[in-house]
Amino acid sequence: VRPEEWTFPPFEPTLTTAALPAGGESRALPAEGEPIDPEWRLYGRSASDDKAPIQALFSALDALSEARVAPTSSFVFLFEGEEESGSPHLGAYLEEVRAEHPVDGWLVCDGPVHPSGRPQVVFGVRGITTVELTVYGPLRPLHSGHYGNWAPNPAEKLAGLLASMKSDDGRVLIEGFYDSVEPLGEAERAALAALPDVDEVLRGELGLALTDGAGESLAERLLLPSLNVRGLWGGGVGDEAANVIPTEASASIDLRLVRGNEPRAMVDRVEAHVRARGWHVVAEEPELAARVEHPRIVRLVRGGGYRAARTPLDDPLGRAVVEAAVRASGEEVVRLPSLGGSLPLYLFQQPTDLPVIVVPIVNHDNNQHGADENLRLGNLAYGIDLMAELLTLP
Amino acid sequence: VRPEEWTFPPFEPTLTTAALPAGGESRALPAEGEPIDPEWRLYGRSASDDKAPIQALFSALDALSEARVAPTSSFVFLFEGEEESGSPHLGAYLEEVRAEHPVDGWLVCDGPVHPSGRPQVVFGVRGITTVELTVYGPLRPLHSGHYGNWAPNPAEKLAGLLASMKSDDGRVLIEGFYDSVEPLGEAERAALAALPDVDEVLRGELGLALTDGAGESLAERLLLPSLNVRGLWGGGVGDEAANVIPTEASASIDLRLVRGNEPRAMVDRVEAHVRARGWHVVAEEPELAARVEHPRIVRLVRGGGYRAARTPLDDPLGRAVVEAAVRASGEEVVRLPSLGGSLPLYLFQQPTDLPVIVVPIVNHDNNQHGADENLRLGNLAYGIDLMAELLTLP
Repeated sequence: VRPEEWTFPPFEPTLTTAALPAGGESRALPAEGEPIDPEWRLYGRSASDDKAPIQALFSALDALSEARVAPTSSFVFLFEGEEESGSPHLGAYLEEVRAEHPVDGWLVCDGPVHPSGRPQVVFGVRGITTVELTVYGPLRPLHSGHYGNWAPNPAEKLAGLLASMKSDDGRVLIEGFYDSVEPLGEAERAALAALPDVDEVLRGELGLALTDGAGESLAERLLLPSLNVRGLWGGGVGDEAANVIPTEASASIDLRLVRGNEPRAMVDRVEAHVRARGWHVVAEEPELAARVEHPRIVRLVRGGGYRAARTPLDDPLGRAVVEAAVRASGEEVVRLPSLGGSLPLYLFQQPTDLPVIVVPIVNHDNNQHGADENLRLGNLAYGIDLMAELLTLP
Repeated sequence: VRPEEWTFPPFEPTLTTAALPAGGESRALPAEGEPIDPEWRLYGRSASDDKAPIQALFSALDALSEARVAPTSSFVFLFEGEEESGSPHLGAYLEEVRAEHPVDGWLVCDGPVHPSGRPQVVFGVRGITTVELTVYGPLRPLHSGHYGNWAPNPAEKLAGLLASMKSDDGRVLIEGFYDSVEPLGEAERAALAALPDVDEVLRGELGLALTDGAGESLAERLLLPSLNVRGLWGGGVGDEAANVIPTEASASIDLRLVRGNEPRAMVDRVEAHVRARGWHVVAEEPELAARVEHPRIVRLVRGGGYRAARTPLDDPLGRAVVEAAVRASGEEVVRLPSLGGSLPLYLFQQPTDLPVIVVPIVNHDNNQHGADENLRLGNLAYGIDLMAELLTLP
């Protein structure tokens, strides 16, 4: 199913060209029999995320059936429709699945291939949790002239608290933050060394003269837990600025977790850091009595979260999948020890640390979730071939 | 004109009770001849700020005229209608006034009396200037999973920069920030020591267990320049939080200035502090070329501003005004070396450091600029008496 061997089938368009995204290059629909360019893209809601691998699987099953080739293993197909809503039923459902079907490992068909365009097999994801800090100042906004220098300013105190959490070059200074990180194996270190170096190009694209981590690569940094101030707010800036001491200031933080980190324990470490700096930590907005008792008072609200998942790169299923991707693409395959992003793959690993391998097929520039989400046809072709290879692993 | 000697004149109400502010205690209009309670309040837009002293002056002039008492000095009356718009024409107009009328000193009829209710004479105001800092991160918002730990986060870098500007107890750490402060004289130090101590009550009202300044009183702190982070913004918090590394983060800062501080020179010190910490300072949003060259890049935008004004407490005009206030009120008078707030009184001091004395008459809880702004009638009575005393200084 090489795309250059495809031709356009008889076709009754149901979308008008008016449905093409703004800025998309419009063209006449191909005539019947015209060859397909692998660079063409299908635009549509969830074209890549996550209809593409589902269609690739169906096409591969059709092709095998037509060629009368039987799969070489038993497969359980699980289609999860609540991923974007936090997968609230996935854990319980997986328990039911496991009770009926003993599973040896899972392949997760999601995410993009490597930005270089090379095929990619991914062995893990980071976990995540969040925490929100709100620091309290005076009960009502105060005139900065009449009270400035005397009434404590919560935006300033919050800045000091946040600044204490990370070094200038991005190392988290919270005690024990890196203690539970499970060290990488030899195979992971080798795969890291073999990754295409995209850092310099990325820095240029993103307008960054320097990145955090004292020279460590993006891929290395994604194998560590992170603390990211995703939001900061207090008083007003620009046209919203007024000469006041605000009543409170907040910061929202996300923690990305790696294998070994427990979400609750990681937030415990953040909370211990805050307390060690003399802050009184509360769970609700403090009453007057608490405010006049404690010089530094902060509300700490924990978000949900889940832990990371990572399968060793020398896992037999992982090795077989990489070989299948090489056969399907005819190219060298990028082996990524972990995505930086988070998916609740730990649910699939239960109960006994089962291998979970992510097998992406779509182009990295698919504008996932955007109005102009798209799927490169060359990637769809790769996906169909890859699914056929996976269904017939030797 | 003691209010207890007033009675209600024949009166045709033009406002209905529906115009009373929410929460205001409504009552039947007083009958003709009913005595007036000094605790009653007149509600209305700018009832206190700044119609009250104008009306008090007119009433005093009427009373003197009726009693055939002549003022003992020559007076220039200046009514400024653009104060809330930054007084853009006041400076030029004052030059014209001075050219026609040689002036020995100014009395400024604005602001409230002391929160204790005691009359107050104020010898100065702080100046002000502002500066806004915007720190830049990646060109587009980045997924905190895919880039967190590697792409620098502008909210975190901004927090670090702000934290470097002040100590935990509110002392500004910027080099030379306090160098140009003109020391207080003996009279000022004595007046400070005699001020009613309101700090403990204020802390209780405002819900503050501790205030900045290592135990210094509010009045002392207002005689120093201040640096106040009036606003802080980057990314989102609460429901607005998303797992991204924001592209930029901003802080808006106001500096209150005391006698000796030049606005431009004070912002120069802030800028020097920022540069000394390795930041590249720009005036406009930086282009890609600048971003990829400088690891730390911050936009610094200077606001307008003006310097403080302060008249020595032993100035002869000031002494005469205090004595007039004692006669008008029959009470001890609070002598305040400076308000914490800012007014462009320096314009009145020109060209030769003329005495400028602020003579407030209205109640401190007048809700200035609010929907329920009000004037306590006892304060209006004091104001009329005070104006009469000032017009007939011995």
